[in-house]
Amino acid sequence: MREIGVGIIGVGVVGSSVVKILRENEEIISARIGAKLVVKRGVVKNISKARDVVLSLDTDEDALINDPNVQIVVELMGGVDDAYRIAKKVLKSNKSLVTANKAMLAYYRYELEQIAKDNFIGFEASVCGGIPIIKALKDGLSANHILSLRGILNGTSNYILSQMSQQKISFEAALKSAQNLGYAEADPSLDINGQDAGHKLLILASLAYGINAKPEEIIIEGITKIHGDDIVFAQDFGFVIKLLGIAKKVHNEVELRVHPVLIDENKMLAKVDGVMNAISVIGDCVGETLYYGAGAGGDATASAVISDLIEIARGKNSAMLGFEKDHFSLKLRDKGCIQSRYYLRMSAFDRVGVLTKIAGILSENNISVEMFLQKQAKDEIVRLCIITHISLEADIVLALQKIDQQEFIVEESFFIRIEDFK
Amino acid sequence: MREIGVGIIGVGVVGSSVVKILRENEEIISARIGAKLVVKRGVVKNISKARDVVLSLDTDEDALINDPNVQIVVELMGGVDDAYRIAKKVLKSNKSLVTANKAMLAYYRYELEQIAKDNFIGFEASVCGGIPIIKALKDGLSANHILSLRGILNGTSNYILSQMSQQKISFEAALKSAQNLGYAEADPSLDINGQDAGHKLLILASLAYGINAKPEEIIIEGITKIHGDDIVFAQDFGFVIKLLGIAKKVHNEVELRVHPVLIDENKMLAKVDGVMNAISVIGDCVGETLYYGAGAGGDATASAVISDLIEIARGKNSAMLGFEKDHFSLKLRDKGCIQSRYYLRMSAFDRVGVLTKIAGILSENNISVEMFLQKQAKDEIVRLCIITHISLEADIVLALQKIDQQEFIVEESFFIRIEDFK
Repeated sequence: MREIGVGIIGVGVVGSSVVKILRENEEIISARIGAKLVVKRGVVKNISKARDVVLSLDTDEDALINDPNVQIVVELMGGVDDAYRIAKKVLKSNKSLVTANKAMLAYYRYELEQIAKDNFIGFEASVCGGIPIIKALKDGLSANHILSLRGILNGTSNYILSQMSQQKISFEAALKSAQNLGYAEADPSLDINGQDAGHKLLILASLAYGINAKPEEIIIEGITKIHGDDIVFAQDFGFVIKLLGIAKKVHNEVELRVHPVLIDENKMLAKVDGVMNAISVIGDCVGETLYYGAGAGGDATASAVISDLIEIARGKNSAMLGFEKDHFSLKLRDKGCIQSRYYLRMSAFDRVGVLTKIAGILSENNISVEMFLQKQAKDEIVRLCIITHISLEADIVLALQKIDQQEFIVEESFFIRIEDFK
Repeated sequence: MREIGVGIIGVGVVGSSVVKILRENEEIISARIGAKLVVKRGVVKNISKARDVVLSLDTDEDALINDPNVQIVVELMGGVDDAYRIAKKVLKSNKSLVTANKAMLAYYRYELEQIAKDNFIGFEASVCGGIPIIKALKDGLSANHILSLRGILNGTSNYILSQMSQQKISFEAALKSAQNLGYAEADPSLDINGQDAGHKLLILASLAYGINAKPEEIIIEGITKIHGDDIVFAQDFGFVIKLLGIAKKVHNEVELRVHPVLIDENKMLAKVDGVMNAISVIGDCVGETLYYGAGAGGDATASAVISDLIEIARGKNSAMLGFEKDHFSLKLRDKGCIQSRYYLRMSAFDRVGVLTKIAGILSENNISVEMFLQKQAKDEIVRLCIITHISLEADIVLALQKIDQQEFIVEESFFIRIEDFK
């Protein structure tokens, strides 16, 4: 049987899983492609570190890339610039590349597509681990204009929000629990500040819209300001709070943003709990489809890496980002143009006239109120929660600034956008 | 730009959608493939029927198949033997075939794969309309052994069960509502008796397991015997009733069956309501993934048909059913070997000793009881509902036969299998 040589640069959790699964599932994988995928060698930074993998390892990436027995290079080292340098080297050596590196792709996906020419670049593992969402957008939904895409793209954040909601615990306690279970790193910043989800959203947006945006150009907000009260208030109004990556076509522009949202508790995405990921995609022909699964973990991510190896072995070859040529020039939408319903949370001294004043400021700023809830927080202090009708984000920001200048306000006010599925 | 000619045999709802979408989304589809898909002609049975499509139509399938301007033939005529005859003709003319015909594939998919050789056969539209589940199994999850697969594969049945559950109405009333909304045909048999779901399950099982089974060889039961009381009882126990297609690997055998089941109300599949479809797939590396969307409708099905046209245009070519060679010989599991927990429903006169007698018969047949509920049904008559521990189906059937011979039983007893996700 024909043998296809694979080299792995970065043999950590995912790399070890790739080696293990290619061996354990060798029979069925070979049957699926009519050829055998064999990992020939790996490159690691620290050769003396003990590893749970039987594989010829060294520290020389060039030797691996130039090895005539290696036809496909798998990059699992992480980081941005070093990984990009190596990826370029692989493609220039006329070999195929498989990568799980979302941060690198968030910056350099179009550059890589240019260099790739006839070499395949697989990156299914870069977004939501084992869920085949890259292939769904590239192949499965290829007849559609994607009207919108909304994803729970970060399992750590989703676990924290689920715990806050189900166990009625604080953000800090939920984060602690995530760290204890290994769902969050010692430094959890990238997960909880939305950056990780942002990288994934940019990759998905390229497949859906052919748009080349960078992390700095889009709204990326995390979940650190979400309060237990917000979750309870949201539930009272029939909503669930989720951190979503959102891509949406509005005329000739694309809105891209990552931030917490309130969504209707009856939507499928609202039902995705714990560390699981899911992406809802609305196409103009197909309507809503949804993809659900584990977004991280060695074996789940390796499942995606190997699915790319199999596609390369089967000889598939189409444009990396799904478009063979530019079709129309969708532009990134200005951040200030966002319109949605909003959830507003304020804390104020419990005095006569407070409500009148707040209502006045909102109406002066073109904001009309859909639902209103007031609860005693502590002695003399009340929490006010408001759901607005559709408003312009610029108006919301301005109104909250004015409200926060009032002497009866006791802490900074806060808003969360409400995501209606249209 | 290179032009690829398409011919459509059977221009009904789906065929008209294919023509419409290829025109409306021409720009983005051409960008995705670097070539243009053009529908050249169509074949219909009744040429004089008014149609909402602008296309050169005639009744001569041979002229279409032999037209040198047609490179891909789309078969949307339905039926089994005639469609198979035409599909063979297409492949023998060395053209690619795209079909939405699940009934034909349930019988002849392996014969077609044999004949296809180097021609591509696309059949994404044959299972669950717009959900790209064929591609997910063939490509996305290709690194995995599929441990099990469970799908809500028929929207009509799911709509009926959802209505019975949410509106507390009878099967008959829910069916009527489905017919009024166009979700069920005037003759709804194929949908509600499980046959349609069975066809789809067999296609999915080939992709997951490489197994060639026919509809007659597997358990296919519909939803017509489900009573409103069953749904209420299930809810009391924390379950939802769904019609599932189930494929499961048990050692060297594959269990294939379609029937109503009770599933834990917290599973994602339990949350799929109305006419929507969803498939949960558990792989040995990836864990559970789930795919959700519209299972029927002209545009959603056309979305799948066109995704296949695009794959062909991109030059993809791999074995129709995902395996380039036989890998291991999984056998179809004997129907009698099924083990699960069971929900049992009985109606009896409200007399002393009834419970003792029933409990005795169950225990004589190796069946132990996990939960028990008794409710007054009418004067003098009670409904007994039992959830058993894991039992052998043969024992359940025998025990219910014995129970139904008792003089205190007032109507035939009924069981529904409980599907635990393992």
